[in-house]
Amino acid sequence: MKNPEPANERFTIQYIITVNDKRSIEEHASDITLEQTVEVPKNCIPDKNFEEGIIGIVENIQPNANIPNQYIVSISYRTDITEFSIPQFFNVLFGNISLKNNIKISDIIFADSFFSVFKGPNYGIEGIRKLIGVYGRALTCSALKPMGLSVDGLSKLASSFAIGGIDFIKDDHGISNQKFHPFKERVSRCQDAVEKVNADREHKTLYFPMVSGKFEEIEEQVQYVLKEGIRGILIAPMLVGLDTVRYISDKYNLIIMTHPALTGTYFHDPSHGIQSSVLLGTLFRMLGSDISVFPHAGGRFYLTEKDCLAISNSLRCTNGSWQNAFPCPAGGIHMDKITEINDTYGVDTVLLIGGSLMQHSADISHSTKIFMKKIKSLYNEKLCPPEIPFASSCEIPSVTDQNRNLPLIKFENFTWSGRLTEEYKTNRCFDFSGINRQELIGKSGEKTSFDLRYFEIKPGGYSSLEKHVHEHVIIGVRGEGVLIKGDSSFNIAVHDIAYVSPLEKHQLRNDGEMPFGFFCIVDHKRDKPTVIKDE
Amino acid sequence: MKNPEPANERFTIQYIITVNDKRSIEEHASDITLEQTVEVPKNCIPDKNFEEGIIGIVENIQPNANIPNQYIVSISYRTDITEFSIPQFFNVLFGNISLKNNIKISDIIFADSFFSVFKGPNYGIEGIRKLIGVYGRALTCSALKPMGLSVDGLSKLASSFAIGGIDFIKDDHGISNQKFHPFKERVSRCQDAVEKVNADREHKTLYFPMVSGKFEEIEEQVQYVLKEGIRGILIAPMLVGLDTVRYISDKYNLIIMTHPALTGTYFHDPSHGIQSSVLLGTLFRMLGSDISVFPHAGGRFYLTEKDCLAISNSLRCTNGSWQNAFPCPAGGIHMDKITEINDTYGVDTVLLIGGSLMQHSADISHSTKIFMKKIKSLYNEKLCPPEIPFASSCEIPSVTDQNRNLPLIKFENFTWSGRLTEEYKTNRCFDFSGINRQELIGKSGEKTSFDLRYFEIKPGGYSSLEKHVHEHVIIGVRGEGVLIKGDSSFNIAVHDIAYVSPLEKHQLRNDGEMPFGFFCIVDHKRDKPTVIKDE
Repeated sequence: MKNPEPANERFTIQYIITVNDKRSIEEHASDITLEQTVEVPKNCIPDKNFEEGIIGIVENIQPNANIPNQYIVSISYRTDITEFSIPQFFNVLFGNISLKNNIKISDIIFADSFFSVFKGPNYGIEGIRKLIGVYGRALTCSALKPMGLSVDGLSKLASSFAIGGIDFIKDDHGISNQKFHPFKERVSRCQDAVEKVNADREHKTLYFPMVSGKFEEIEEQVQYVLKEGIRGILIAPMLVGLDTVRYISDKYNLIIMTHPALTGTYFHDPSHGIQSSVLLGTLFRMLGSDISVFPHAGGRFYLTEKDCLAISNSLRCTNGSWQNAFPCPAGGIHMDKITEINDTYGVDTVLLIGGSLMQHSADISHSTKIFMKKIKSLYNEKLCPPEIPFASSCEIPSVTDQNRNLPLIKFENFTWSGRLTEEYKTNRCFDFSGINRQELIGKSGEKTSFDLRYFEIKPGGYSSLEKHVHEHVIIGVRGEGVLIKGDSSFNIAVHDIAYVSPLEKHQLRNDGEMPFGFFCIVDHKRDKPTVIKDE
Repeated sequence: MKNPEPANERFTIQYIITVNDKRSIEEHASDITLEQTVEVPKNCIPDKNFEEGIIGIVENIQPNANIPNQYIVSISYRTDITEFSIPQFFNVLFGNISLKNNIKISDIIFADSFFSVFKGPNYGIEGIRKLIGVYGRALTCSALKPMGLSVDGLSKLASSFAIGGIDFIKDDHGISNQKFHPFKERVSRCQDAVEKVNADREHKTLYFPMVSGKFEEIEEQVQYVLKEGIRGILIAPMLVGLDTVRYISDKYNLIIMTHPALTGTYFHDPSHGIQSSVLLGTLFRMLGSDISVFPHAGGRFYLTEKDCLAISNSLRCTNGSWQNAFPCPAGGIHMDKITEINDTYGVDTVLLIGGSLMQHSADISHSTKIFMKKIKSLYNEKLCPPEIPFASSCEIPSVTDQNRNLPLIKFENFTWSGRLTEEYKTNRCFDFSGINRQELIGKSGEKTSFDLRYFEIKPGGYSSLEKHVHEHVIIGVRGEGVLIKGDSSFNIAVHDIAYVSPLEKHQLRNDGEMPFGFFCIVDHKRDKPTVIKDE
């Protein structure tokens, strides 16, 4: 992730502000420009050594024609104050003003650099359709529940949904790593159950396990999921951390289905917070959501149909280079209302039906089949072969190379276990001869501020005559050699230690008849050597 | 972290429920018992293979005498459904019902097992007072700002606050890793400025940098802070993730000061959300907050004095085995109101004064002195020597200048020319035997980012069993020895290389009959080891 912003590039946040005191809307807007940036009164900002343009700029104030004392206010900010990181972006967006009242975020207009830093959904609507080969109809999802059911019970349920022909199965979001259905066992068993059904037919059901592990275990859980050949996960950004979701989506080529747990207070108040279309739509899409679950109007929750359509629009509208994402209405979707729900959301929707399938019949695969039949009757479904093979995935980026953090790098005859002998330099501008290199520490995942290497020079060989700012420490290990250092030269025998100062010209030579080996320790972060032509 | 809960142990959540429809309070309460657990209608719960007691139990319903249609409802849950993890605990607490209305969490009564899993504040009020040696008065804090000021300006400001005698300096929470004040440079420079002032006096000002890095970099930032000799951090749980804070507090022995950014919508509505006393008090203390910043009544934000006192009480009350934490009222605290603010909160408080110090006078150290004088005039301050030494990590005697930058440090019989053989450690808290040290590189004027040392252990001798954030690289030089590393042990022979990861417990032993000598390479700037008592 680069920060490619042009100087003073700005982005804009739109707020709905309700004025309920004697101050003017201009004063309220001006407060926000300070509160979300410098957080001091204007007269405390020093003249010198202070970056221009840090404070927000009020770009526009429009009264809301329908609600007295309510205004729509646009404020622009320099993009680089967000650090182009999710934590600081949310801080600028709503950090301190969350602690005020009567301010509601209603839109965000991003600048170009956000789209190059935050890549949005990995798959999006088109990518997911290609992956499973289903076009022309709404997609469907159901949930494995209830919490407390045995792994056996959950995997049987997964099998039933798959037999019924559902497109996606997700864990209930409360099914995490409890001891009565531990994460790994549950994930493997449910995926096995689904794969078994998939094996016999072209239509593939995908299983999205809930990933809600602790900070220190969540990445391992994601890798476990990938190793099981699973293509997507369910994840709740407010439970595991907003940037955790961005990180996982960035690093792993997964379908990300987001869950709205713990988000409700951001939008339940019409006059304060972040609109549901912005949080569950725009922002979750920014984090990488391919499918955003939200409570459907008319179910157990309070969002209105207008809210739900606004969320859907934020997910599906054109927004920079981000792929369009699926809205996923959920929470009290009933079999007998499928037609109207479809009318509301249209074809590019994932319909999540949970308890209703269970209530419809004790035979879950049967009620799933009826549900799927209803859905298909509303559309002209077109099927293609799934684009991507569904074998277990081997493209997992390796966090742990096999040789990383080996407990012991064993010495044997001047080679070290798990370490390769490499060319001394690949750049042929340098003059050298008969020398090779082993990277021992610093290139295999260690976080040291130094690198340890072993060099060996054949009889008659030499390293390049060079200089650089970084220092060298040399320790004799094998045989004897010569260090040219400035205008002097020194013999280096086993265990002798030499130090080369910044920009001191130096070279190592083997004038003897046996190999000359030495350790060389350098700063991990270092400048490139400059070659010195023979004088 | 173990899960030591007895079978079917339960904990209780208290809700304030406002009924605004025709259903009874009993129906509302019953809905919550399902919504937060199994998330299906009761008749969908299978008989077989289902864990007993998963569904919440309504323990008590009391009408609120003062508000019609409002009830105080207690519901108990099996503790193990929370997985004893922060993400799933918050899910059970308020995941789905956040998406409803008229439900406010007003209390949590934990069960024993929570206190053994979640250890709460590392230092607490007593620990922080011992650390800095200040008793009998409220503690004080100010903030480095504004965002956009140069690193030079910020470090000068830090110096001024320290000269003025403030107890703590925190970064403004919007100062993160922006290119105009990059994290590492800013942290090092501000800490240097504070250390310089501290060096000349017994009272020590502590600097708490804001840590808000991305998922993949936040732990490195914490380690950087530790290596700089810094004792605490400022962190915003909702920005970086709730469990990220728990993780950092658990793993690193830091003072955790929490910031309330992005929390406001949880408590701004009196009838829906999580009370501020529960979120900023109880729950942030559960995550490890030693000092919880919250908006003071009468400042720029809307909390009432009653809210602020309830937060303070949740932080300071007895709650299982958790240490008491400091309330830290902030946001519009003015010099001229210090007396009444002190009366409100009492002695065990950290008063955060920001802009007001800047507005009071252009000479910040002068206005800080006046502020400190006012505070001290209200109390009988008692000072003790700070408990923990504040020297930077260089108690190591330095080699005489004559030996600096010797061109060659000649090896002879396991000593090196110009280098002294010294004691292994001067601190007798550590258990070690028969070991000495030669500082070869890093203490004689070299500017390397690493130090190279030679240690030699006599037969039967051993180094201390310890751990630290900085890594070790060990190279066998003489004889053979044993490296204890985590739960394993390895033989180290000549030229073998071993790597010790951050916080891995380790020890070197010589069980043989000949001397065992090894090089040890470490980062030049590094944290102090923690001794591990024999288990």
